[in-house]
Amino acid sequence: MYTIEYLINFTQSIFEKIGCPKEDALDIANVFVKAELRNLPSHGMIRIKDYFQLWEAGRINTKPSVKTVHETPGTAVVDADGAIGIIGAIKSMRLAIEKAQISTTGWVATRNSNHLGIGSYYAMMALEHDMIGITMTNANPMVAPTNSTERILGTNPITVAVPAKKQVDFVADFSTTPIARGKLAVASAKNEKIPYGYVQDKNGNPSDDPDIMKKGGSMLPLGGDIAHGSHKGYALGAIVDIFTGVLSGANYGPFVPPFLAYLPMPDTFVGKGMGHFFGAMRIDGFSSSDEFKKRMDHWILTLKNAKPIEGKKVLIPGEIEREAEKLNSKNGIKVLPGIQDDLKEIADKLGVDFELRK
Amino acid sequence: MYTIEYLINFTQSIFEKIGCPKEDALDIANVFVKAELRNLPSHGMIRIKDYFQLWEAGRINTKPSVKTVHETPGTAVVDADGAIGIIGAIKSMRLAIEKAQISTTGWVATRNSNHLGIGSYYAMMALEHDMIGITMTNANPMVAPTNSTERILGTNPITVAVPAKKQVDFVADFSTTPIARGKLAVASAKNEKIPYGYVQDKNGNPSDDPDIMKKGGSMLPLGGDIAHGSHKGYALGAIVDIFTGVLSGANYGPFVPPFLAYLPMPDTFVGKGMGHFFGAMRIDGFSSSDEFKKRMDHWILTLKNAKPIEGKKVLIPGEIEREAEKLNSKNGIKVLPGIQDDLKEIADKLGVDFELRK
Repeated sequence: MYTIEYLINFTQSIFEKIGCPKEDALDIANVFVKAELRNLPSHGMIRIKDYFQLWEAGRINTKPSVKTVHETPGTAVVDADGAIGIIGAIKSMRLAIEKAQISTTGWVATRNSNHLGIGSYYAMMALEHDMIGITMTNANPMVAPTNSTERILGTNPITVAVPAKKQVDFVADFSTTPIARGKLAVASAKNEKIPYGYVQDKNGNPSDDPDIMKKGGSMLPLGGDIAHGSHKGYALGAIVDIFTGVLSGANYGPFVPPFLAYLPMPDTFVGKGMGHFFGAMRIDGFSSSDEFKKRMDHWILTLKNAKPIEGKKVLIPGEIEREAEKLNSKNGIKVLPGIQDDLKEIADKLGVDFELRK
Repeated sequence: MYTIEYLINFTQSIFEKIGCPKEDALDIANVFVKAELRNLPSHGMIRIKDYFQLWEAGRINTKPSVKTVHETPGTAVVDADGAIGIIGAIKSMRLAIEKAQISTTGWVATRNSNHLGIGSYYAMMALEHDMIGITMTNANPMVAPTNSTERILGTNPITVAVPAKKQVDFVADFSTTPIARGKLAVASAKNEKIPYGYVQDKNGNPSDDPDIMKKGGSMLPLGGDIAHGSHKGYALGAIVDIFTGVLSGANYGPFVPPFLAYLPMPDTFVGKGMGHFFGAMRIDGFSSSDEFKKRMDHWILTLKNAKPIEGKKVLIPGEIEREAEKLNSKNGIKVLPGIQDDLKEIADKLGVDFELRK
């Protein structure tokens, strides 16, 4: 078990060692640890290795000059200068919030960025300002549009955070695919088949093979097949790609560079790096914050009290993660032994202390 | 076959007869006929009967005073005064566009409205202004949140329209459920089973019965079951309900009044009428419109040219509807005999001419 402080200090030291300014390194550490706290370890400490390898490969800029390249009072395009995605994202969301403070709503499209970790971190930054927060990001191509066999879109997640009064804030954070890619790796490691509707083979036939991506297969959009509305999941992933990639001047579709250092870069670029999109909307642009948050409380209670399927519980998006956050803050954070080994190796290379713990 | 002009004149006359001002009646006619042109007849002429019956039941206001009740330069809340949804929606979207002209982006939440027909009509109003257009609406409860057996959310559709240069504009318009409710009625009429993943029975068990809604069943969110990401479809439907219902001061969740006159009104209201949400974003808030539209053309061509599954075609959202629009504008619009009979009955009641045609 690790305390929050231990992991934050450690992560900050790692990123300072690879050249990040102190505050950037702290921001990065906060985002990783937030993912661990919210029981999203696939976006937590395990990712440090990926960023480290990208840095070794010269694919990320740890001393970026993140710049606003186009601006109106309520909108902007930010060029993240090849930054670690977390830095591009935090600075862009801060700008969106500042713009909303002046113009009621603020909208920032970001290019030349990288993987941003958990999208909910940025959307939730809006909450304390009595704003609704929105995050979208594109990602390297894994998903075939409906009727295609080609990996053209990323899993392109969307996050929306809405403040409540006494209830837990609403925080929806989801990819526009039935599952995250990590689920395939887990099934493969366990030598298990996966349900139909997640992936297809290289000819577009349904598949239950978790290793199909290595055989020319592709992931399917949310909905799975046309009969179940995969064209809607495709449309949703496309909207994210347009807002994050086309609008910002980043790469889009099949041109989005991969996040992993061992994957080759695309031959062609149609923009700079990965793209994100951030929104902040002041509640008082629509009604008094207090009245709205009371209504949100009532909305949340109405949904929570919907008649459950026997033995199940109706959940509000973000509820489980918030409960995990409370629990993990108290009890500490567990890091899997394999991930600890990776962190230790990186720590040794950089001359940072890291204790292996049970 | 009917010409566009014939159906527009007829529809305008009907709505003038039930008290709508001339321009409102024309707006309504344009939206119905647009649905027919885009091969979405479920939202076209067939709906006139529903509005007529709502008017007979005193549930819609044909002489509404649609008012802005809260406003900043870039945001507003509109009270549609019980208007036919189309009127509430058109006036709200016009306001969103005006606000975007001044503030780069415009956002309008609308309450006290009704069914708005095809959401794409309003989102597409933004296109000629070089803006991205967004429409959302809530709807009466049909859908159970994940893990619940209770109908709490509507099919809550989202529309996003994005301008292109030479290519057909991107227009995604989809409910946050695998299917529209109409599909159940069609399967029932044909005495066919439906695929699992559309509906569940009153205890939350999977069902293939198209009549399950009459037996206490409910529709499922996009994704179908948890394994296929129904919690994501639920989150998406929830976001729409919050933006349209909670933010605007309309009813939300199970309190949204039904669109059909023969369905009883809920016992409790938590706001006024149905809710919508409209957005307009000037492209030049982010880059030159021309450059963006060239990038959109390239994005569209990239997706269209993605390797297809043998014998299939990769489609861009809105492409089929645009093709239908061209074809139907030339060849005329077919109205099914049963719908013609209904229209004739209404026309006779109101003293309007209507010709039955093959």
